[in-house]
Amino acid sequence: MIEKPLLEVCLSPALLHLYDTKDTIVVIIDVFRATSTIAAALHNGARAVIPIASVEECIALTNTVEGCITAGERDGKVVPGLQYGNSPLEYSAGFIGGKTLALTTTNGTKLLHMVRDADTIITGSFLNLDAVCTYLKKRGQKVLLACAAWKDRVNMEDTLFAGAVAEALQDDFALLCDSAQMAVSLYRQAQTAPSLLAFLEPSSHYKRLSNFGLVGDMAYCTTPNQHPVVPVYNGKELVAG
Amino acid sequence: MIEKPLLEVCLSPALLHLYDTKDTIVVIIDVFRATSTIAAALHNGARAVIPIASVEECIALTNTVEGCITAGERDGKVVPGLQYGNSPLEYSAGFIGGKTLALTTTNGTKLLHMVRDADTIITGSFLNLDAVCTYLKKRGQKVLLACAAWKDRVNMEDTLFAGAVAEALQDDFALLCDSAQMAVSLYRQAQTAPSLLAFLEPSSHYKRLSNFGLVGDMAYCTTPNQHPVVPVYNGKELVAG
Repeated sequence: MIEKPLLEVCLSPALLHLYDTKDTIVVIIDVFRATSTIAAALHNGARAVIPIASVEECIALTNTVEGCITAGERDGKVVPGLQYGNSPLEYSAGFIGGKTLALTTTNGTKLLHMVRDADTIITGSFLNLDAVCTYLKKRGQKVLLACAAWKDRVNMEDTLFAGAVAEALQDDFALLCDSAQMAVSLYRQAQTAPSLLAFLEPSSHYKRLSNFGLVGDMAYCTTPNQHPVVPVYNGKELVAG
Repeated sequence: MIEKPLLEVCLSPALLHLYDTKDTIVVIIDVFRATSTIAAALHNGARAVIPIASVEECIALTNTVEGCITAGERDGKVVPGLQYGNSPLEYSAGFIGGKTLALTTTNGTKLLHMVRDADTIITGSFLNLDAVCTYLKKRGQKVLLACAAWKDRVNMEDTLFAGAVAEALQDDFALLCDSAQMAVSLYRQAQTAPSLLAFLEPSSHYKRLSNFGLVGDMAYCTTPNQHPVVPVYNGKELVAG
């Protein structure tokens, strides 16, 4: 019998050091909204998305990269000096096609830079759920689903997405860590709600973003498979894999 | 309208720094098995339980404290040099009545010593679930349910107990943190299983302890309200509150 590869879930960047990422495919998850925006931009024809740690670096990039659009948020809000926000709905094909998106966000881009020795880093969101699952199944090697969380605090929406992936892959991977089991359980419990978004209503991020008038954005971010693409990090940029 | 006090859940000692424990009642949770053993020992008449960080300190205590029994585990196994293990079933009234239990464990006692400035520290387990809930409701102030986890990795059984408490107190406290919402969701999902123990079968701790022949122990630890007591930490010892 061939042993199934391990699929683990890390619920917060503050727990990342507990996981061995060597020879591992790491999936960065920031459902609200970095990895949703990345899926939308790449699927709609962006040449690449450059994840950037600081707002300053992001702005500086417009001088060196041609056709570069700066975008991002801090604490869920657009940052002065950046051209666009962190909404997947902003990046239509007509707008983003052929361009490069330099993106800086509170949690997702930070986590991506924390992963050091992975075999491959990709990003996941409900918008590219099936594409990510198909990719992981095809690769058939060890997986870590890494939730961006909120300032290191565990969050519901990223865990929910990890649960959706773990549930879809449970026959092909070994779900030995409790976080993976808990994520699957959360995803199953969400099936009792009218929608994924309705299930997320008690979450802190739902409250934060709905106060900024972003319920429509969240509804889009929780709609599976609108952007079937696998964003792969090449050490510098995320490109459609 | 009087604002409800906050009830938060910390899923791992590695996340404890994210929570403000000032003016807070902190509930230390180590279902398998430190806080289950503490509830059993105190309810069965132990004078006190002294939580100890190291095996060496634990052994040294027998020379200074009269009627002191040393007990504990490392990695779920009894440690050479300690007199007893970490099973609530070992501490019957006839055995432990009037004695002092010096207890050292992998996760639970470590976490207890990490909490610095709380208003009150108590311990919780399914064995004293209702007693803990009644106590917290009566006190009516800010609560942090702190899971001992397993070497900083989030675990199912402690989160499940946090969910049981959060669900019982949701009308009286504000559950604003996502970890609290997720714990409640896990507890609700557990209601679809034949028993709490059956729900925990995929967990890593279930596998670890069942390999040591401890399924009976875990069945006992997941049976609510066998030991209605509130263990309160006085800075040195846990005593029946």
